[in-house]
Amino acid sequence: MVKTTSTTPSAAALILAGGSGTRLWPRSTDERPKPFLALGGGKSLLAETFDRAAELAGPDGVFLSARVSHEELIRRELPALPEGRLVLEPERRNTAPAIALSALAVEEVRPGATLVVLPSDQGVRDPKAFSSALTRAVEAARSGEVFVTLGVPPTRPETGYGYLETAPDDAGEPVRRVVRFVEKPPLEAAERYVRSGNFYWNAGIFAFRIPVLFSAMEELCPEILAAARDAHAARKAGDAAGFAAAFARAPKLSIDYAVMEKARDVRTVPADCGWSDLGSWEAVHDFRAKDAAGNASEGNATLIGSSGSLVLASGRPVVVIGLEGVVVVDSPAGLLVSRKGASDDLRRFVEKEIAKGKPA
Amino acid sequence: MVKTTSTTPSAAALILAGGSGTRLWPRSTDERPKPFLALGGGKSLLAETFDRAAELAGPDGVFLSARVSHEELIRRELPALPEGRLVLEPERRNTAPAIALSALAVEEVRPGATLVVLPSDQGVRDPKAFSSALTRAVEAARSGEVFVTLGVPPTRPETGYGYLETAPDDAGEPVRRVVRFVEKPPLEAAERYVRSGNFYWNAGIFAFRIPVLFSAMEELCPEILAAARDAHAARKAGDAAGFAAAFARAPKLSIDYAVMEKARDVRTVPADCGWSDLGSWEAVHDFRAKDAAGNASEGNATLIGSSGSLVLASGRPVVVIGLEGVVVVDSPAGLLVSRKGASDDLRRFVEKEIAKGKPA
Repeated sequence: MVKTTSTTPSAAALILAGGSGTRLWPRSTDERPKPFLALGGGKSLLAETFDRAAELAGPDGVFLSARVSHEELIRRELPALPEGRLVLEPERRNTAPAIALSALAVEEVRPGATLVVLPSDQGVRDPKAFSSALTRAVEAARSGEVFVTLGVPPTRPETGYGYLETAPDDAGEPVRRVVRFVEKPPLEAAERYVRSGNFYWNAGIFAFRIPVLFSAMEELCPEILAAARDAHAARKAGDAAGFAAAFARAPKLSIDYAVMEKARDVRTVPADCGWSDLGSWEAVHDFRAKDAAGNASEGNATLIGSSGSLVLASGRPVVVIGLEGVVVVDSPAGLLVSRKGASDDLRRFVEKEIAKGKPA
Repeated sequence: MVKTTSTTPSAAALILAGGSGTRLWPRSTDERPKPFLALGGGKSLLAETFDRAAELAGPDGVFLSARVSHEELIRRELPALPEGRLVLEPERRNTAPAIALSALAVEEVRPGATLVVLPSDQGVRDPKAFSSALTRAVEAARSGEVFVTLGVPPTRPETGYGYLETAPDDAGEPVRRVVRFVEKPPLEAAERYVRSGNFYWNAGIFAFRIPVLFSAMEELCPEILAAARDAHAARKAGDAAGFAAAFARAPKLSIDYAVMEKARDVRTVPADCGWSDLGSWEAVHDFRAKDAAGNASEGNATLIGSSGSLVLASGRPVVVIGLEGVVVVDSPAGLLVSRKGASDDLRRFVEKEIAKGKPA
């Protein structure tokens, strides 16, 4: 047994160390996917997520769910990760199976714990506000049969995100009831959501007591929980083949689709904390500190007569002259020079040309 | 004595293998200056110049004037260069001393030869027209006490070039009399020159009989010729220190300033041959073959929704999305991303940041 020294004894955190990003080529690659990049300008997103999780649950209350193939990358990025905290999936089967398998591992170390799930590829500009919101979510989850999400007040009519709709009658409350999950809305709907004050971006961050997750899964997606239980037992018995075979039986479903959207009681803690999914170079530009001309740059970059641009150098000097609103990203894997707002073109190019023939 | 097998027995060519280009960073560097780059898209500019020179004078009728420090680069670029054809200067002292020293070396191998001087950092899109014009210049020079330049009909009011003014009375003749050299004119003057039909760009290419050069130098710049003669004698005697000391006494003057502008009889052969000085990335873009969208690219470059641009990749994939009229040059020394027409900003940046502390 591992001795635990967490700051909130009954809380644990589960970091989903997946995430990729065809919109973040050439930095994000199969060999070094998004969580391992320092997109916010400091540490890697994974290391920053670990720090935020450790503040809540203590360093040994932090668990990671990751692909087997990323084990080495993770151990290099988080050398101080305590023993037994890395839950490796034999293959990617979306978030519901991964969370079920990990929750079984957490349950052994911290039985009955309240667990917070955190994606590892996001940025937070105001860690203090984020931390308060997370603590509030854990407290709300601890009280009953409930899933408590973090809700980010939308600042623009983003059509690429999921939204949480809350009931108008608890506006202004620190915890609000979620009445509906909305996936990537059309622009007009998104504009309405931003104006309404009752919609939040779904950051994919949520807290629950582990028994609450298991009983919801037994009701809503029993085959996922059964597959996870079999896989967990096989792993404990040292049966690698049985582990892989059992996990492969779990349907590939997201936790939102398999559980959250159907759960009886879902709430949200509004969290105005400078959250970003850092899902494109435009989002990275928005997230970063900028100079008076609206430029964000990194490394040996010189901008002359240029504005509103993101320039990430990588060793060699990069010089940008006379341009407005461009993204320049230098990387060993390649070089991107793009007008801002063309991330769909980039995604299509990467899917077609760079990632072709590679498994997802 | 070297056996000569040239196609035009009494002609020889002298390539000035100098030239740099702060406007061509990051490709042009101190370690690999402009003549060694394949800016036209084929061989290096030096190798292409050598081919043009060899067509006129035969491979062993081609001489090169170069800096000592570039000897290795040149031998690697022109491995078939015959013995005794490389005239190394101990230091850069502009073109007049370099040409005098080289002419003395040529004179020993091809006494009384008609010599054509060719810069090594230019491009020619129509080698056939260039070759005819050069042959015509040699023929005109062979006949008397005359310097015969190549005159490029101007296609735009370029303010960065020198112009040759010819007498209006021989318009249309294959060889015209030069009445004046004009250095980098203001825009209004340049516009007038383009309209007049009597002005040509001075490409720095000219032919003369060697005795004509020497007698003109004796009259117009005797100290240059004297220093070159002393340096030549010292080198033949194996006296390296004496060679360097003598050459160092030659005033640093260009051949145009020291001789051509003051010579009694200068003529020009109009040469409409797609000549370019390739002096900036804009000039390189103009010079190159372009696709329907006006893009010129090289290497592993992908242009999406982009037009009027020059994109030179270098190994790694380069992707340019949604941009118009940009220059993207990837190179081990650095990366340039620029609006077209900003080459003065580039020059200032390179002089200040890249070349600082380095000898010219």
